Amino acid sequence: MNELMEDREHWSTANCSIARTLDIIGTRAATLILREAFFGTRRFDDFARLVGISEPATAARLKELTLAGVLERVPYQDPGQRTRFEYRLTAKGLALQPVITALRQWGDEWAADPAGPAVQVLHRDCGAPVRACVRCAAGHDVPAGEVVFEAGPGLIAAS
Amino acid sequence: MNELMEDREHWSTANCSIARTLDIIGTRAATLILREAFFGTRRFDDFARLVGISEPATAARLKELTLAGVLERVPYQDPGQRTRFEYRLTAKGLALQPVITALRQWGDEWAADPAGPAVQVLHRDCGAPVRACVRCAAGHDVPAGEVVFEAGPGLIAAS
Repeated sequence: MNELMEDREHWSTANCSIARTLDIIGTRAATLILREAFFGTRRFDDFARLVGISEPATAARLKELTLAGVLERVPYQDPGQRTRFEYRLTAKGLALQPVITALRQWGDEWAADPAGPAVQVLHRDCGAPVRACVRCAAGHDVPAGEVVFEAGPGLIAAS
Repeated sequence: MNELMEDREHWSTANCSIARTLDIIGTRAATLILREAFFGTRRFDDFARLVGISEPATAARLKELTLAGVLERVPYQDPGQRTRFEYRLTAKGLALQPVITALRQWGDEWAADPAGPAVQVLHRDCGAPVRACVRCAAGHDVPAGEVVFEAGPGLIAAS
Protein backbone atom coordinates (compact mmCIF):
# COMPACT_ATOMS: atom_id res chain seq x y z
CA MET A 1 0.00 0.00 0.00
CA ASN A 2 1.31 3.43 -0.82
CA GLU A 3 1.36 6.79 0.90
CA LEU A 4 -2.03 8.00 -0.27
CA MET A 5 -3.68 4.89 1.10
CA GLU A 6 -1.75 5.00 4.38
CA ASP A 7 -3.24 8.48 4.72
CA ARG A 8 -6.73 7.23 3.83
CA GLU A 9 -8.21 8.86 6.97
CA HIS A 10 -7.41 12.34 5.74
CA TRP A 11 -9.11 12.53 2.42
CA SER A 12 -12.69 12.26 1.37
CA THR A 13 -14.39 10.22 -1.29
CA ALA A 14 -17.03 12.93 -1.77
CA ASN A 15 -15.49 13.42 -5.19
CA CYS A 16 -15.06 9.76 -6.11
CA SER A 17 -15.37 9.04 -9.84
CA ILE A 18 -16.79 5.58 -9.16
CA ALA A 19 -19.56 7.02 -6.98
CA ARG A 20 -20.26 9.68 -9.60
CA THR A 21 -20.61 7.00 -12.27
CA LEU A 22 -22.96 5.02 -10.03
CA ASP A 23 -25.06 8.18 -9.54
CA ILE A 24 -25.78 8.02 -13.26
CA ILE A 25 -25.87 4.35 -14.21
CA GLY A 26 -25.92 2.66 -10.82
CA THR A 27 -29.35 1.07 -10.80
CA ARG A 28 -29.87 -2.43 -12.10
CA ALA A 29 -32.56 -1.22 -14.52
CA ALA A 30 -30.35 1.56 -15.91
CA THR A 31 -27.49 -0.87 -16.50
CA LEU A 32 -29.76 -3.38 -18.24
CA ILE A 33 -31.22 -0.60 -20.41
CA LEU A 34 -27.65 0.21 -21.43
CA ARG A 35 -27.04 -3.45 -22.21
CA GLU A 36 -30.03 -3.34 -24.56
CA ALA A 37 -28.83 -0.09 -26.11
CA PHE A 38 -25.47 -1.73 -26.89
CA PHE A 39 -27.41 -4.68 -28.38
CA GLY A 40 -29.08 -2.16 -30.72
CA THR A 41 -32.42 -1.64 -28.97
CA ARG A 42 -33.80 1.87 -29.46
CA ARG A 43 -37.52 1.96 -28.79
CA PHE A 44 -39.39 2.48 -25.55
CA ASP A 45 -41.57 -0.63 -25.77
CA ASP A 46 -38.57 -2.80 -26.60
CA PHE A 47 -36.59 -1.50 -23.63
CA ALA A 48 -39.51 -2.18 -21.27
CA ARG A 49 -40.15 -5.70 -22.56
CA LEU A 50 -36.54 -6.82 -23.00
CA VAL A 51 -35.34 -5.48 -19.65
CA GLY A 52 -38.53 -6.75 -18.01
CA ILE A 53 -39.52 -3.59 -16.16
CA SER A 54 -42.78 -1.61 -16.02
CA GLU A 55 -43.51 1.25 -18.40
CA PRO A 56 -43.26 3.88 -15.63
CA ALA A 57 -39.88 2.49 -14.55
CA THR A 58 -38.70 2.41 -18.17
CA ALA A 59 -39.83 6.02 -18.65
CA ALA A 60 -38.05 7.14 -15.48
CA ARG A 61 -34.75 5.40 -16.32
CA LEU A 62 -34.77 6.58 -19.95
CA LYS A 63 -35.44 10.14 -18.79
CA GLU A 64 -32.56 10.01 -16.30
CA LEU A 65 -30.16 8.54 -18.86
CA THR A 66 -31.22 11.16 -21.40
CA LEU A 67 -30.82 14.04 -18.92
CA ALA A 68 -27.38 12.66 -18.03
CA GLY A 69 -26.44 12.78 -21.72
CA VAL A 70 -25.88 9.03 -22.01
CA LEU A 71 -28.82 8.55 -24.38
CA GLU A 72 -30.37 11.00 -26.82
CA ARG A 73 -33.97 11.13 -28.00
CA VAL A 74 -34.25 11.07 -31.78
CA PRO A 75 -37.60 11.48 -33.58
CA TYR A 76 -38.78 8.77 -35.97
CA GLN A 77 -42.02 8.15 -37.79
CA ASP A 78 -43.43 4.83 -38.94
CA PRO A 79 -45.69 5.06 -42.03
CA GLY A 80 -49.12 6.34 -41.05
CA GLN A 81 -48.12 6.87 -37.41
CA ARG A 82 -47.44 9.98 -35.39
CA THR A 83 -43.88 11.02 -34.67
CA ARG A 84 -42.28 9.09 -31.83
CA PHE A 85 -38.85 9.12 -30.23
CA GLU A 86 -36.19 6.51 -30.04
CA TYR A 87 -33.18 6.44 -27.74
CA ARG A 88 -29.63 6.20 -29.02
CA LEU A 89 -26.31 6.05 -27.23
CA THR A 90 -24.38 9.31 -27.38
CA ALA A 91 -20.58 9.49 -27.37
CA LYS A 92 -20.86 9.67 -23.56
CA GLY A 93 -23.00 6.53 -23.64
CA LEU A 94 -20.74 4.65 -26.05
CA ALA A 95 -17.87 5.44 -23.66
CA LEU A 96 -19.56 3.03 -21.21
CA GLN A 97 -18.55 0.11 -23.42
CA PRO A 98 -15.70 -0.91 -21.05
CA VAL A 99 -18.12 -0.93 -18.09
CA ILE A 100 -20.67 -3.11 -19.87
CA THR A 101 -17.95 -5.36 -21.27
CA ALA A 102 -16.30 -5.79 -17.88
CA LEU A 103 -19.62 -6.65 -16.19
CA ARG A 104 -20.41 -9.19 -18.92
CA GLN A 105 -16.98 -10.75 -18.84
CA TRP A 106 -16.95 -11.20 -15.07
CA GLY A 107 -20.39 -12.78 -15.24
CA ASP A 108 -19.25 -15.07 -18.05
CA GLU A 109 -16.24 -16.22 -16.04
CA TRP A 110 -17.49 -16.28 -12.47
CA ALA A 111 -21.28 -16.39 -12.44
CA ALA A 112 -22.51 -17.92 -15.70
CA ASP A 113 -24.92 -20.79 -16.04
CA PRO A 114 -23.07 -24.13 -16.07
CA ALA A 115 -24.05 -24.39 -19.75
CA GLY A 116 -22.00 -21.24 -20.44
CA PRO A 117 -22.81 -17.66 -21.33
CA ALA A 118 -25.97 -16.68 -23.20
CA VAL A 119 -24.28 -14.38 -25.67
CA GLN A 120 -20.80 -14.29 -27.17
CA VAL A 121 -19.32 -10.95 -28.18
CA LEU A 122 -16.84 -11.18 -31.04
CA HIS A 123 -14.68 -8.73 -32.94
CA ARG A 124 -16.40 -8.15 -36.28
CA ASP A 125 -13.16 -7.93 -38.22
CA CYS A 126 -11.39 -11.04 -36.94
CA GLY A 127 -13.97 -13.09 -35.03
CA ALA A 128 -11.95 -13.26 -31.80
CA PRO A 129 -13.79 -12.94 -28.45
CA VAL A 130 -13.97 -9.42 -27.05
CA ARG A 131 -12.66 -8.82 -23.54
CA ALA A 132 -12.30 -6.01 -21.02
CA CYS A 133 -8.72 -5.44 -19.96
CA VAL A 134 -6.71 -3.13 -17.76
CA ARG A 135 -3.63 -1.57 -19.28
CA CYS A 136 -1.48 1.45 -18.66
CA ALA A 137 -0.98 4.24 -21.20
CA ALA A 138 2.41 2.72 -21.99
CA GLY A 139 0.67 -0.47 -23.13
CA HIS A 140 1.43 -2.83 -20.25
CA ASP A 141 -1.21 -5.15 -18.84
CA VAL A 142 -1.72 -4.10 -15.21
CA PRO A 143 -2.83 -6.67 -12.62
CA ALA A 144 -4.61 -5.33 -9.53
CA GLY A 145 -1.47 -5.76 -7.42
CA GLU A 146 0.62 -3.55 -9.70
CA VAL A 147 -1.21 -0.25 -9.31
CA VAL A 148 -0.30 2.71 -7.13
CA PHE A 149 -2.68 5.48 -6.12
CA GLU A 150 -1.78 9.14 -6.13
CA ALA A 151 -3.75 12.22 -5.20
CA GLY A 152 -5.56 13.73 -8.17
CA PRO A 153 -6.31 17.44 -8.65
CA GLY A 154 -9.85 16.97 -7.32
CA LEU A 155 -8.89 15.33 -4.02
CA ILE A 156 -10.80 16.83 -1.09
CA ALA A 157 -9.57 16.75 2.51
CA ALA A 158 -11.78 14.81 4.92
CA SER A 159 -14.00 17.10 6.99
CA MET B 1 -26.96 -5.27 -36.34
CA ASN B 2 -26.47 -8.97 -36.81
CA GLU B 3 -28.72 -12.00 -36.94
CA LEU B 4 -28.85 -12.71 -33.23
CA MET B 5 -30.04 -9.19 -32.56
CA GLU B 6 -32.57 -9.21 -35.38
CA ASP B 7 -33.96 -12.26 -33.64
CA ARG B 8 -33.93 -10.50 -30.25
CA GLU B 9 -37.62 -11.37 -29.66
CA HIS B 10 -36.89 -15.05 -29.54
CA TRP B 11 -34.33 -15.38 -26.85
CA SER B 12 -34.35 -14.60 -23.20
CA THR B 13 -31.95 -12.65 -21.02
CA ALA B 14 -32.80 -14.84 -18.03
CA ASN B 15 -29.25 -16.09 -18.30
CA CYS B 16 -27.56 -12.73 -18.89
CA SER B 17 -24.04 -12.48 -17.50
CA ILE B 18 -24.44 -8.76 -16.86
CA ALA B 19 -27.57 -9.34 -14.79
CA ARG B 20 -25.83 -12.15 -12.92
CA THR B 21 -22.93 -9.84 -12.09
CA LEU B 22 -25.35 -7.17 -10.88
CA ASP B 23 -27.02 -9.77 -8.65
CA ILE B 24 -23.71 -10.00 -6.78
CA ILE B 25 -22.16 -6.54 -6.89
CA GLY B 26 -25.04 -4.43 -8.16
CA THR B 27 -25.76 -2.23 -5.17
CA ARG B 28 -24.06 1.10 -4.75
CA ALA B 29 -22.81 0.11 -1.29
CA ALA B 30 -21.38 -3.21 -2.52
CA THR B 31 -19.52 -1.48 -5.35
CA LEU B 32 -18.08 1.15 -3.00
CA ILE B 33 -17.02 -1.57 -0.55
CA LEU B 34 -15.16 -3.17 -3.45
CA ARG B 35 -13.55 0.18 -4.28
CA GLU B 36 -12.25 0.31 -0.70
CA ALA B 37 -11.07 -3.29 -0.88
CA PHE B 38 -9.03 -2.43 -4.00
CA PHE B 39 -7.65 0.59 -2.10
CA GLY B 40 -6.44 -1.86 0.55
CA THR B 41 -9.16 -1.50 3.20
CA ARG B 42 -9.76 -4.71 5.13
CA ARG B 43 -11.51 -4.00 8.40
CA PHE B 44 -15.20 -3.72 9.19
CA ASP B 45 -15.04 -0.32 10.89
CA ASP B 46 -12.97 1.12 8.04
CA PHE B 47 -15.42 -0.10 5.38
CA ALA B 48 -18.36 1.43 7.27
CA ARG B 49 -16.68 4.81 7.81
CA LEU B 50 -14.98 5.14 4.41
CA VAL B 51 -18.02 4.06 2.40
CA GLY B 52 -20.25 6.11 4.68
CA ILE B 53 -22.87 3.49 5.46
CA SER B 54 -24.34 2.20 8.71
CA GLU B 55 -22.88 -0.76 10.57
CA PRO B 56 -25.89 -2.99 9.80
CA ALA B 57 -25.64 -2.12 6.09
CA THR B 58 -21.90 -2.77 6.15
CA ALA B 59 -22.44 -6.12 7.85
CA ALA B 60 -25.11 -7.11 5.32
CA ARG B 61 -23.03 -6.16 2.26
CA LEU B 62 -19.84 -7.81 3.62
CA LYS B 63 -21.81 -10.98 4.36
CA GLU B 64 -23.26 -11.05 0.83
CA LEU B 65 -19.88 -10.43 -0.80
CA THR B 66 -18.31 -13.14 1.37
CA LEU B 67 -21.07 -15.66 0.59
CA ALA B 68 -20.61 -14.86 -3.10
CA GLY B 69 -16.91 -15.66 -2.76
CA VAL B 70 -15.76 -12.16 -3.72
CA LEU B 71 -14.32 -11.46 -0.27
CA GLU B 72 -12.95 -13.88 2.30
CA ARG B 73 -12.95 -13.50 6.08
CA VAL B 74 -9.48 -13.89 7.55
CA PRO B 75 -8.86 -13.90 11.32
CA TYR B 76 -6.46 -11.38 12.84
CA GLN B 77 -5.57 -10.42 16.38
CA ASP B 78 -4.28 -7.09 17.61
CA PRO B 79 -2.09 -7.31 20.77
CA GLY B 80 -4.28 -7.77 23.84
CA GLN B 81 -7.49 -7.96 21.81
CA ARG B 82 -9.77 -10.84 20.93
CA THR B 83 -9.59 -12.43 17.49
CA ARG B 84 -11.40 -10.45 14.84
CA PHE B 85 -11.90 -10.90 11.12
CA GLU B 86 -10.81 -8.84 8.19
CA TYR B 87 -12.08 -9.05 4.63
CA ARG B 88 -9.78 -9.65 1.68
CA LEU B 89 -10.45 -9.89 -2.04
CA THR B 90 -10.35 -13.46 -3.33
CA ALA B 91 -9.27 -14.34 -6.88
CA LYS B 92 -12.94 -13.94 -7.84
CA GLY B 93 -12.92 -10.49 -6.24
CA LEU B 94 -9.63 -9.43 -7.84
CA ALA B 95 -11.17 -10.40 -11.18
CA LEU B 96 -13.50 -7.41 -10.71
CA GLN B 97 -10.58 -5.05 -11.36
CA PRO B 98 -11.77 -4.29 -14.94
CA VAL B 99 -15.25 -3.41 -13.62
CA ILE B 100 -13.93 -1.03 -10.96
CA THR B 101 -11.38 0.45 -13.36
CA ALA B 102 -14.00 1.02 -16.07
CA LEU B 103 -16.40 2.70 -13.61
CA ARG B 104 -13.61 4.95 -12.33
CA GLN B 105 -12.36 5.84 -15.79
CA TRP B 106 -15.79 6.78 -17.11
CA GLY B 107 -16.36 8.96 -14.04
CA ASP B 108 -12.95 10.57 -14.51
CA GLU B 109 -13.73 11.39 -18.12
CA TRP B 110 -17.44 12.16 -18.10
CA ALA B 111 -18.56 13.01 -14.59
CA ALA B 112 -15.58 14.28 -12.60
CA ASP B 113 -15.43 17.47 -10.60
CA PRO B 114 -14.22 20.37 -12.78
CA ALA B 115 -11.03 20.30 -10.72
CA GLY B 116 -10.35 16.79 -11.99
CA PRO B 117 -10.45 13.31 -10.46
CA ALA B 118 -9.82 12.70 -6.77
CA VAL B 119 -7.43 9.80 -7.24
CA GLN B 120 -5.03 8.85 -10.00
CA VAL B 121 -4.28 5.20 -10.60
CA LEU B 122 -0.83 4.56 -12.04
CA HIS B 123 1.14 1.51 -13.12
CA ARG B 124 3.64 0.82 -10.34
CA ASP B 125 6.39 -0.26 -12.72
CA CYS B 126 6.30 2.62 -15.22
CA GLY B 127 4.13 5.36 -13.69
CA ALA B 128 1.72 5.57 -16.65
CA PRO B 129 -2.02 6.05 -15.97
CA VAL B 130 -4.06 2.85 -15.76
CA ARG B 131 -7.05 2.49 -18.04
CA ALA B 132 -9.83 0.03 -18.82
CA CYS B 133 -9.88 -1.05 -22.44
CA VAL B 134 -11.79 -3.38 -24.71
CA ARG B 135 -9.75 -5.67 -26.91
CA CYS B 136 -10.24 -8.93 -28.69
CA ALA B 137 -8.25 -12.06 -27.99
CA ALA B 138 -6.21 -11.34 -31.12
CA GLY B 139 -5.07 -8.07 -29.54
CA HIS B 140 -7.10 -5.53 -31.51
CA ASP B 141 -8.75 -2.57 -29.80
CA VAL B 142 -12.49 -3.02 -30.35
CA PRO B 143 -14.76 0.06 -30.49
CA ALA B 144 -18.44 -0.51 -29.64
CA GLY B 145 -19.40 -0.39 -33.32
CA GLU B 146 -17.07 -3.24 -34.25
CA VAL B 147 -18.60 -6.05 -32.21
CA VAL B 148 -20.92 -8.80 -33.35
CA PHE B 149 -23.09 -10.92 -31.07
CA GLU B 150 -23.51 -14.65 -31.41
CA ALA B 151 -25.54 -17.14 -29.44
CA GLY B 152 -23.58 -18.68 -26.59
CA PRO B 153 -24.05 -22.22 -25.22
CA GLY B 154 -26.27 -20.89 -22.39
CA LEU B 155 -28.75 -19.04 -24.58
CA ILE B 156 -32.34 -19.74 -23.55
CA ALA B 157 -35.33 -19.40 -25.86
CA ALA B 158 -37.88 -16.78 -24.84
CA SER B 159 -40.90 -18.29 -23.11
